[in-house]
Amino acid sequence: MQVAIYPGTFDPVTNGHLDIIKRAANLFESVIVAVAVSTPKRTYLNLAERLELLKAATSHLANVNVKPFSGLMVNFARKEGASVIIKGLRAVSDFESEMQVALMNKKLAEDIETIFLMATTEYSFVSASIVRQVAIVGGCLEGLVPPEAAEILQRHFRRR
Amino acid sequence: MQVAIYPGTFDPVTNGHLDIIKRAANLFESVIVAVAVSTPKRTYLNLAERLELLKAATSHLANVNVKPFSGLMVNFARKEGASVIIKGLRAVSDFESEMQVALMNKKLAEDIETIFLMATTEYSFVSASIVRQVAIVGGCLEGLVPPEAAEILQRHFRRR
Amino acid sequence: MQVAIYPGTFDPVTNGHLDIIKRAANLFESVIVAVAVSTPKRTYLNLAERLELLKAATSHLANVNVKPFSGLMVNFARKEGASVIIKGLRAVSDFESEMQVALMNKKLAEDIETIFLMATTEYSFVSASIVRQVAIVGGCLEGLVPPEAAEILQRHFRRR
Amino acid sequence: MQVAIYPGTFDPVTNGHLDIIKRAANLFESVIVAVAVSTPKRTYLNLAERLELLKAATSHLANVNVKPFSGLMVNFARKEGASVIIKGLRAVSDFESEMQVALMNKKLAEDIETIFLMATTEYSFVSASIVRQVAIVGGCLEGLVPPEAAEILQRHFRRR
Amino acid sequence: MQVAIYPGTFDPVTNGHLDIIKRAANLFESVIVAVAVSTPKRTYLNLAERLELLKAATSHLANVNVKPFSGLMVNFARKEGASVIIKGLRAVSDFESEMQVALMNKKLAEDIETIFLMATTEYSFVSASIVRQVAIVGGCLEGLVPPEAAEILQRHFRRR
Amino acid sequence: MQVAIYPGTFDPVTNGHLDIIKRAANLFESVIVAVAVSTPKRTYLNLAERLELLKAATSHLANVNVKPFSGLMVNFARKEGASVIIKGLRAVSDFESEMQVALMNKKLAEDIETIFLMATTEYSFVSASIVRQVAIVGGCLEGLVPPEAAEILQRHFRRR
Repeated sequence: MQVAIYPGTFDPVTNGHLDIIKRAANLFESVIVAVAVSTPKRTYLNLAERLELLKAATSHLANVNVKPFSGLMVNFARKEGASVIIKGLRAVSDFESEMQVALMNKKLAEDIETIFLMATTEYSFVSASIVRQVAIVGGCLEGLVPPEAAEILQRHFRRR
Repeated sequence: MQVAIYPGTFDPVTNGHLDIIKRAANLFESVIVAVAVSTPKRTYLNLAERLELLKAATSHLANVNVKPFSGLMVNFARKEGASVIIKGLRAVSDFESEMQVALMNKKLAEDIETIFLMATTEYSFVSASIVRQVAIVGGCLEGLVPPEAAEILQRHFRRR
Repeated sequence: MQVAIYPGTFDPVTNGHLDIIKRAANLFESVIVAVAVSTPKRTYLNLAERLELLKAATSHLANVNVKPFSGLMVNFARKEGASVIIKGLRAVSDFESEMQVALMNKKLAEDIETIFLMATTEYSFVSASIVRQVAIVGGCLEGLVPPEAAEILQRHFRRR
Repeated sequence: MQVAIYPGTFDPVTNGHLDIIKRAANLFESVIVAVAVSTPKRTYLNLAERLELLKAATSHLANVNVKPFSGLMVNFARKEGASVIIKGLRAVSDFESEMQVALMNKKLAEDIETIFLMATTEYSFVSASIVRQVAIVGGCLEGLVPPEAAEILQRHFRRR
Repeated sequence: MQVAIYPGTFDPVTNGHLDIIKRAANLFESVIVAVAVSTPKRTYLNLAERLELLKAATSHLANVNVKPFSGLMVNFARKEGASVIIKGLRAVSDFESEMQVALMNKKLAEDIETIFLMATTEYSFVSASIVRQVAIVGGCLEGLVPPEAAEILQRHFRRR
Repeated sequence: MQVAIYPGTFDPVTNGHLDIIKRAANLFESVIVAVAVSTPKRTYLNLAERLELLKAATSHLANVNVKPFSGLMVNFARKEGASVIIKGLRAVSDFESEMQVALMNKKLAEDIETIFLMATTEYSFVSASIVRQVAIVGGCLEGLVPPEAAEILQRHFRRR
């Protein structure tokens, strides 16, 4: 059985992420959405919130599991029996840094393959970072993130 | 009357910004330079300084106004009766992130158009960030920023 | 009155071109779609076909005119009393070559401004070249080009 | 059974192509290398030569088949029962044009997914075009193409 | 003595090329401008014209020599005792293809180093190709190419 | 005697840096590796550690010196009698920002030339930043950094 990992920070999960997850779930028998426990920069949503939003948004996809991970991505992949890492590509700046990460992962684990899916055009401008910017100034998040994420983000930024 | 908005942080205004402002003032009946009150990263100059420098540098342009803004850019544009957002483009990295912002603004406000002006070659390397780096180490700012900005920057970084 | 020129080969006009033309027609009092008479590479459609398709597709836009041009774009712009050249931007490779042309035009005619409009996401992959490739192999052109263009292209490539 | 298509001109097959084919053969149950019968530009090697070289170079890979194709790639994919198109990515210029093709294919066939594999660093500069340039001037092709291809190319260009 | 090669087609030499040649002549004891005898595409100026224009434009630079070359660039470099190949970089598309050529040359001749000089901003849009486009439609070439080249180009394209 | 400067933060020195240093040492009579004393972001290794690692890694290169610098790079270059600044280029994002810095340095010191060396393919994905990410999660650093750097990094991140 071929298992694929889709790693990220998901701060928050966007409709762009969901689109990649659905397409990955069609390609592979099992997809693990791997949520980074800690990141170089402080996240806006805590780990529990990020996991909860992803679980709600992917609950209808039978072969998708959401799990936290820390440490080397390739070690996590091996532990989960995954042979594929999935990445979404939006634009050149994505491409450059993702290429760097993919080549480093290749060096660390020759047997694990990174594959890239191109973002669907309607989500090509949707990143977690620009979603947060819209949320901070109270903009409408409809169509950008799953409804549960819109709600939690609006609560989150109203608190601040 | 067609009103255009030129948004930015202007930390500080550079000769590259001024070049775009002058060209925009030739294209549109009224240009509002919209200065972001707050930004994800802390600014080097405070809002009053950033506004003052822009006002001094654009005082000779009759149809240019400098105003602070917060919240969603498209909401500010609507409040000011503007139908156009102007952006300067220097290089690929500019292009990628500006495309993302322009497409998000299109989603948030279908009726507001973003137009891009290409930086003049002599300013193609002048960014507020590289100007600050030069100012921090005491380099000459002539030709990079308006004279008033050079003075305030030099005072500012000498204080530190 | 501000006149803008939208130059191109339009071999054939695509829905991406039309989107830019409509948006330009909202921004400027008069828009001239300038169709290059001759190009370095041989065109698939002849000048009469390219003009006819554009005229049919823009007939509902009162302030848009379609005209052939040869020689220097900036000379044509001056002759037509235009002060603005409009270009659509899709991706990095567009950006690079369009920047080069814009800077050359700036050198040749300081008073004529080139402005860029970002392609709408749903047309971000639609170029005349990829449309021709689809037409050559008999693929469906619906949604890619105006209906009249689809028809003439299909006739054109069936002949071959 | 998941079938993947790896389309190209293969004029000639390079070690970079072979690397992608091998990795694709690990990911999918069956891989069809689809060789374009005709291309916008005239090929250096004829179809028979291109097919023969690919067959020789992939003969040790049990789940790889080499087939010629013409017409729309997505129609060929459907006829072969393939749900995946595989592309190799080397650099930004690849990325831009491949994105365009992938999005067009998505529009033409929603159910067929394009996935991208990053070129291994040692092949990141090896393209069929640069291989031909080296062959034309009699340079050594070792390490760039399979041995059979080196031989046929050298014969081919010596004839000219 | 360190000898550097500056290879190209020079169809025609531009002021951008000359700027790189002058800067290379300051860096290295001897600079050989290597003019490609034949190119994949037909040149506009013949070899004699291209050599003559370069010789006229570089006659005041004592350590610069202009020579035709054919075959592998690295073989020519070795024959001339050169250890360095010089390339000018203008923009991303330059960068991509030049990187490919530089890495191929490294594979063919480990001991020959390719170094890149960034185009001066005022020449960042000047390419031989855009100069030819301006010449074809009778535009002014002042500031783009050396005076001798402007004259020969104007004669050349008037003939056509 | 031609002196070249290779500036950077070297947090830590990588095998990619070392490759550039060795190649620069072949090109120029004397190479000064200039280590930035302070940077906009806090470094992971302190100045003493960064200098020590570079000195250990370059001790076998007779014409290479390691020195700390602060203030304007071009002032440091002048003080050291250097006429050349060397930069390594890996990818487009490097290229964009390095171009900006090179053009700014050209404005600040017309007589100092920046030259670029392309990263060797096997190091094209190795940056100090990705090395730190691997070190933080305890990944193997062999082949990425000199052995001394691997050791100090592993001690450093174990402490945290």
